[in-house]
Amino acid sequence: MVTPSHLEDLIAALRCLPGVGPKSAQRMAYHLLQRDRAGALHLAKSLEQAVSNILHCSKCNNFSEHEICDLCASPKRDAGLLCVVEMPADLLMMEQTQCYRGMYFVLMGRLSPLDGIGAKELHLDRLVRRVQEQPHEGRLAEVILATNFTVEGDATAHYLATLLQAQGVRVSRIARGLPVGGELEQVDSGTLAQAVLERREVMG
Amino acid sequence: MVTPSHLEDLIAALRCLPGVGPKSAQRMAYHLLQRDRAGALHLAKSLEQAVSNILHCSKCNNFSEHEICDLCASPKRDAGLLCVVEMPADLLMMEQTQCYRGMYFVLMGRLSPLDGIGAKELHLDRLVRRVQEQPHEGRLAEVILATNFTVEGDATAHYLATLLQAQGVRVSRIARGLPVGGELEQVDSGTLAQAVLERREVMG
Repeated sequence: MVTPSHLEDLIAALRCLPGVGPKSAQRMAYHLLQRDRAGALHLAKSLEQAVSNILHCSKCNNFSEHEICDLCASPKRDAGLLCVVEMPADLLMMEQTQCYRGMYFVLMGRLSPLDGIGAKELHLDRLVRRVQEQPHEGRLAEVILATNFTVEGDATAHYLATLLQAQGVRVSRIARGLPVGGELEQVDSGTLAQAVLERREVMG
Repeated sequence: MVTPSHLEDLIAALRCLPGVGPKSAQRMAYHLLQRDRAGALHLAKSLEQAVSNILHCSKCNNFSEHEICDLCASPKRDAGLLCVVEMPADLLMMEQTQCYRGMYFVLMGRLSPLDGIGAKELHLDRLVRRVQEQPHEGRLAEVILATNFTVEGDATAHYLATLLQAQGVRVSRIARGLPVGGELEQVDSGTLAQAVLERREVMG
């Protein structure tokens, strides 16, 4: 009786957002109704537009408004390189480096058996198909695994390496080591140990 | 080029939610598009419905779907008592105690000069009018100030006490002290000091 039903509905609906519990949802609903009704309506419209217009690119699996996304359709990209990343945000980071001009495949997640996300849930068959279909467009020189260096990202990279090498394609993993500008004194021992383990010979 | 424009719109729109920065907004957008499109559409609808149906009760200022909310319209409540709270959530907490059967006034905030929220922004004239209009319905025996015991809530209570006493109405503040089941050893010294200062005589 005390809380209007449309307000209760809104509070419940806000909980579909990740990381939003009952208290945050309540605070968000109060804020929108009290201070930002225009923002709430704009958000409603944006949600509808995004849901009806955004699909996954059939080549790279990234979010796209077209069957093939702009990046995959671009003739300027090197079709011989394929970089596998976990999320669209990772792809954006790679693009910001401006050092990579190949293609991408976005997993939209990582293998995480504890959360029930296995090879099937990640639709890794799409990645295999993507690699198999490559020959029609030119040889795939290399697949670069750029998943995160977390336990799950590493496990995913391991799994993908086995899967893709079975397809006869060369697979590499981005380097682990000290960050640019990094000092030995500041870095954690795990990273330093990896940097020693994966040291590169200095050419004379 | 890399992020579809509808996705960018959605990420921007999500930032109208309090406590949501660019990274959270991105994570929310990815989650909704990838795993919960039905939830996103439901949220859009709930936002629209709430914005178009929820207004403020003209008596207590709480969110309501009607001109006068159910609580204010109820004949079972004691019209001689008025409890002032900061937010609708505080009203719910008061109701849960089941010890108060009077009316409410919801400030929808607190005085907070640093955030630019003064007496005008809180529309305290509505509260004064609410108190002045009371005589037509029966004498107002007491206004109970139940704002939070934060710096801002306390300042608000102080301001309201002066404002309402000028209207010739009796004003009280809910008690400060040790919580039920509280131990002296566990409680913070500020609370203990207040509990000593505001001690009550034990009737023999």
